[in-house]
Amino acid sequence: MKLSELGEFGLIERIRKVTPKGRGVRLGIGDDAAWVECEGRSFLITSDLLIEGIHFDFRWTSFYGLGYKTLAVNLSDLAAMGGRPAYLTLSLGIPVDFKTENIEKFYRGIRTLAVQSGVSLVGGDTSLSERFFISASLVGHAPYGAITRGGGKAGDDLYVTGTLGDATLGLELLRRKKSKAGKDAAFLISRHHFPTARLKAGLTLAKERLAKAMIDVSDGLLQDLGHLCKASGIGAVIWQEALPLSRAYRSAAGKAGLFYALAGGEDYELLFSLRSHHRSRLEKAKRRMGVPVTHIGKCVPADQGIRVINSKGQPLAIPPVGYDHFKVRR
Amino acid sequence: MKLSELGEFGLIERIRKVTPKGRGVRLGIGDDAAWVECEGRSFLITSDLLIEGIHFDFRWTSFYGLGYKTLAVNLSDLAAMGGRPAYLTLSLGIPVDFKTENIEKFYRGIRTLAVQSGVSLVGGDTSLSERFFISASLVGHAPYGAITRGGGKAGDDLYVTGTLGDATLGLELLRRKKSKAGKDAAFLISRHHFPTARLKAGLTLAKERLAKAMIDVSDGLLQDLGHLCKASGIGAVIWQEALPLSRAYRSAAGKAGLFYALAGGEDYELLFSLRSHHRSRLEKAKRRMGVPVTHIGKCVPADQGIRVINSKGQPLAIPPVGYDHFKVRR
Repeated sequence: MKLSELGEFGLIERIRKVTPKGRGVRLGIGDDAAWVECEGRSFLITSDLLIEGIHFDFRWTSFYGLGYKTLAVNLSDLAAMGGRPAYLTLSLGIPVDFKTENIEKFYRGIRTLAVQSGVSLVGGDTSLSERFFISASLVGHAPYGAITRGGGKAGDDLYVTGTLGDATLGLELLRRKKSKAGKDAAFLISRHHFPTARLKAGLTLAKERLAKAMIDVSDGLLQDLGHLCKASGIGAVIWQEALPLSRAYRSAAGKAGLFYALAGGEDYELLFSLRSHHRSRLEKAKRRMGVPVTHIGKCVPADQGIRVINSKGQPLAIPPVGYDHFKVRR
Repeated sequence: MKLSELGEFGLIERIRKVTPKGRGVRLGIGDDAAWVECEGRSFLITSDLLIEGIHFDFRWTSFYGLGYKTLAVNLSDLAAMGGRPAYLTLSLGIPVDFKTENIEKFYRGIRTLAVQSGVSLVGGDTSLSERFFISASLVGHAPYGAITRGGGKAGDDLYVTGTLGDATLGLELLRRKKSKAGKDAAFLISRHHFPTARLKAGLTLAKERLAKAMIDVSDGLLQDLGHLCKASGIGAVIWQEALPLSRAYRSAAGKAGLFYALAGGEDYELLFSLRSHHRSRLEKAKRRMGVPVTHIGKCVPADQGIRVINSKGQPLAIPPVGYDHFKVRR
């Protein structure tokens, strides 16, 4: 079977099948990060690939910004487990005609965020390559244990940090060459280039044992909600009017409406489920999370699937979601 | 400056300069693996890139063998630090027309060696890519502390495990389409496809505090000896007639003579320095190392450089060494 038929998620399932779960592995392939035990302590390991032309475009991405975002994306995976990042390795495939100065700018972008987030770059590899690509691995701690995607139950509340859709709308503005279209555009584009990993929120939710299932919104709210629901064995209802949108999003989205908020990727916000009786504890924890959180829906039994409803309780037509690297594009 | 002028090692130096050494980092960029402390315990992290057309060639490499070798190469980096491997992440860039079956064969090769060496595959990433490439990160323990490249002193003995040059000679046979040229060819080619990481040897040398400086021979004896000497601030003399050569190498090397043993890569043997007064302790430890070790030379003061001498004490012309991904090929 060709990969283009099987798809990325199908491939991951196949890989899981040929991969026995080893000693000390609390959680292997299939969550935001792996959760392992070493001599009685919990560690998290996450890896991400970024390839020129697939994950980023040098027409509107600077080397500095790319470095920053490379680390941010990995930090977000650890945030989604309630982890604290520590050590980064970076392997780069570099075209032979690249300028050294640009590679240094890339590392400066890494360094800026590494210093802010307490991360040390400790190693990696470099090789010649036709296209520029980056493979990053980040190791961190889980001082309060890790929060997986699988702990949600029907009846839980669903929350999300920050606002949704900004990064994809920012990317759309870049594609349409509207990067100089005022303050709103500047905000949205900065959300695309410089996402904020919600490390404080993730750690607080783990420490207070508030989040029962958690994932970062990297592929779009609905797709990542789908992963959380599948792992937890539940369905979900999202209240359209509760979706947190930035002022810039509201003013610039136009005909796209809620599309990017529901299906756009790269927001790197945290989506989590909370037992309803923990609401008041969440209220108290909010000020330590460093970002607003919004109650956007409920977990329901699996047979009800995933729905988005308006204030009258009517279901919205859910946009086709799911970015799959290997599936043939339409 | 272009990378093709600066070269890979120049680039690594530049990266080190823009990368501050963080908390808990015992050893960062520039050794076989990073050595970090987490809550009082020592961990090792290593990362390697393997790219189709640069590091391997599907004309003579099977997917199963490639999986096996991917892990072996990373195990060897940990062996060279005296470490014990634990957790692997794998990121793959995969062309869209690849067959799923082949990717599964790749993971089976990983699994075979993972089970043998106590490693768990815990995560990674996959993406579409024009060329197939693999980015692996391996995390391990250093139960006896890590052995760096930098602990050698003038007066130390130099030892190497196993035999040298077999893997490159095997690759040459594959290139010359002599893969069916008898038992010797089969042995040499298997050394190219299925290298053995010297984990037991590395751990024993660390536990017994025998190796003072250590590196794995991945780029060829002379180049890796150069790294060890540079990190230790020493020079070295290698005795030509002491170089450990396999029977197959002796019979198949022909006009190449010692060239592959001195300058060929991918042997994944361990090169280490030993204080001379520890010789008898090394003798006793040998049977626990799982591989023969050979005394091949001495460490000398840095100003004497690196020389290979014959039994009359005459220096050999040292072959031009050093594989650099970014330097323009001659």
